[in-house]
Amino acid sequence: MPYALHIGPNIRKSPYFDATVADGVQGFSVYNHMFIPGHFGDPEAEYDRLLNGVAMWDVAAQRQVELTGPDAARLAQRLTPRDLASLQPGRGRYVPLCDHDGWLINDPVLLKLADDRFWLSVADSDIHLWALAVAREGGMDVQVREPDVSPLAIQGPRAMDVAEALLGNWVRELPFFGFREMELAGIPLVVARSGWSRQGGVELYLRDGTKGSELWQRVKAAGQPFGIGPGAPNDIERLESGLISYGADMRRQCQPANPFEMGFAAMVNLEAGHDFIGRAALERIKAEGWKRERRILEVEGAPVDGNAHPLPLVQGGAEVGTLFEMAHSRRLGLNIAHGMLPRDLPEGAVLSVSLPDGPRRVVPRASGD
Amino acid sequence: MPYALHIGPNIRKSPYFDATVADGVQGFSVYNHMFIPGHFGDPEAEYDRLLNGVAMWDVAAQRQVELTGPDAARLAQRLTPRDLASLQPGRGRYVPLCDHDGWLINDPVLLKLADDRFWLSVADSDIHLWALAVAREGGMDVQVREPDVSPLAIQGPRAMDVAEALLGNWVRELPFFGFREMELAGIPLVVARSGWSRQGGVELYLRDGTKGSELWQRVKAAGQPFGIGPGAPNDIERLESGLISYGADMRRQCQPANPFEMGFAAMVNLEAGHDFIGRAALERIKAEGWKRERRILEVEGAPVDGNAHPLPLVQGGAEVGTLFEMAHSRRLGLNIAHGMLPRDLPEGAVLSVSLPDGPRRVVPRASGD
Repeated sequence: MPYALHIGPNIRKSPYFDATVADGVQGFSVYNHMFIPGHFGDPEAEYDRLLNGVAMWDVAAQRQVELTGPDAARLAQRLTPRDLASLQPGRGRYVPLCDHDGWLINDPVLLKLADDRFWLSVADSDIHLWALAVAREGGMDVQVREPDVSPLAIQGPRAMDVAEALLGNWVRELPFFGFREMELAGIPLVVARSGWSRQGGVELYLRDGTKGSELWQRVKAAGQPFGIGPGAPNDIERLESGLISYGADMRRQCQPANPFEMGFAAMVNLEAGHDFIGRAALERIKAEGWKRERRILEVEGAPVDGNAHPLPLVQGGAEVGTLFEMAHSRRLGLNIAHGMLPRDLPEGAVLSVSLPDGPRRVVPRASGD
Repeated sequence: MPYALHIGPNIRKSPYFDATVADGVQGFSVYNHMFIPGHFGDPEAEYDRLLNGVAMWDVAAQRQVELTGPDAARLAQRLTPRDLASLQPGRGRYVPLCDHDGWLINDPVLLKLADDRFWLSVADSDIHLWALAVAREGGMDVQVREPDVSPLAIQGPRAMDVAEALLGNWVRELPFFGFREMELAGIPLVVARSGWSRQGGVELYLRDGTKGSELWQRVKAAGQPFGIGPGAPNDIERLESGLISYGADMRRQCQPANPFEMGFAAMVNLEAGHDFIGRAALERIKAEGWKRERRILEVEGAPVDGNAHPLPLVQGGAEVGTLFEMAHSRRLGLNIAHGMLPRDLPEGAVLSVSLPDGPRRVVPRASGD
């Protein structure tokens, strides 16, 4: 369902914007008040490259919130229920962030650059404002700002070949969520083993926004022998892989969810004694039990065309949950979706969702899949 | 410069979404993580309706942040440098919001519904998260939430005729930024004399998101005799009228500005003694003086086609400021723009901006215009 998007000055441009336009970007979305490429005109080829080859993505809209200063570590720990005591410099960690009532407000990767310096690589909400308010209202000695940092992702089974050709063979030694600061021909980078897919690869955190086109061209050239092509974070792959999409799967203001409901129970550390935001609420929820859980779903029948809105999931005429996002997976030969359902839904329950061409049976996969 | 925008489930839909699609919306932008119509296929007719007739706009993306409870008034005052002591229930006020360093983070209209209940009708940043952090980290007894409220604007010289036909003649008695809670055939509304244009009119704050299409049809029917048609917040009119656009004119993360620079000096009340966020910084800036100011600019030469990016303003080969947004005004017969320039720029200074077809002379209007 494409509509025209006006490229005005009120929404930010990525440092890779001109390069993606030159390479034929056809559609954008908006993420963290910045344009992010949607596709380059051939979604099937872009999916195939991600699954079988290698793709390069402008993910500059994954903005960074930098915490620096004596209280940076204290602030980082105050922002997340996940225990950060063991996190070493040079390593990242996926950190759900909650508000005081235990609702998720973002799910960034936290990069620990030094004992007093962190980046939150954030999903689509203004964590800059949240972290700033927490720091300053709490009288902390820490600077919160958005640095000039813009990730470019290289993803797919051939991604590490491209990364090695571009950066050297040391990159293969990076552990998952490990990173290193470096320069590539004068371009300052943080190179991390990460990315929003399950196909492997790296993210190049460009640290000089004037060099976006130069970095884009270098990645493209290094990737040529491996068949690299442009693409974008892929909703089909993320649904297949069970990755979370803040905004689609939950959003504080309109579709709230807590970490237990989202399957993050193991990341809520109540034992370490940290005074993180939401602690009291999460203790209470854990004690009382939570009523819903995120589930991976199969939508039976003919290939679906995606959904514009969240859709009600119905059981015996009653709305019991919500389907967040669905897509047809050619690879799996079925329609896959994410949604939220009651925890006490009986095994084998028959659900349905109403699509434009009629109702469809919906089958939840076994819980925890 | 149109690109395709994908209508996926990760960006919210307005309650008027289906009605605007049925009425032929052609383009969207994204504002507060929600689709907002850009135009309906005939921008010139839409501009003419706003200037000479009446237009209806889906501005649901202007989300509300509701403050309720014993500390609601204290929180509202803590969020803005503007003095709220004299604000009465039933009245609104334009309230710049600053962070602790005095940088603007939003410029909402604050509606005082009761002594313990306020709405911030926010521009494009997550003030929900900001206000929540300030309230809870400060131990205030106040609830911060996003209510089910979605404005629909009726704007233009015939707007009050439509409002009277729809709502009754009492609506003409509403003072500017005055509002009243009411029901229209079972549709709960707050009706305010306001809107993001200088052409006059009302905003209907719909308080039941299931009734978007019904309200849209009622407004359309009441407006038929007056030639109403759909439209959207209009960048040409806002540039002509000197209205601020958070995101285009400033944004905390990438294009920071303080209230003095934006021309809000009269709204920074340091005398009343309120302990608002940013007070110390704003006292210092006022004492030391600020170096830049927002100016309305004329770009000489042939009609311009708008700009995708902010543009550097050059004087004698040196970059001295930034042009935020420009457009051709047929009505005024010139190109009008907003930008930021040094306060000590000599009267009659010759500036230039580089456009795709070559450099253009830029003439700032007299300061304070």
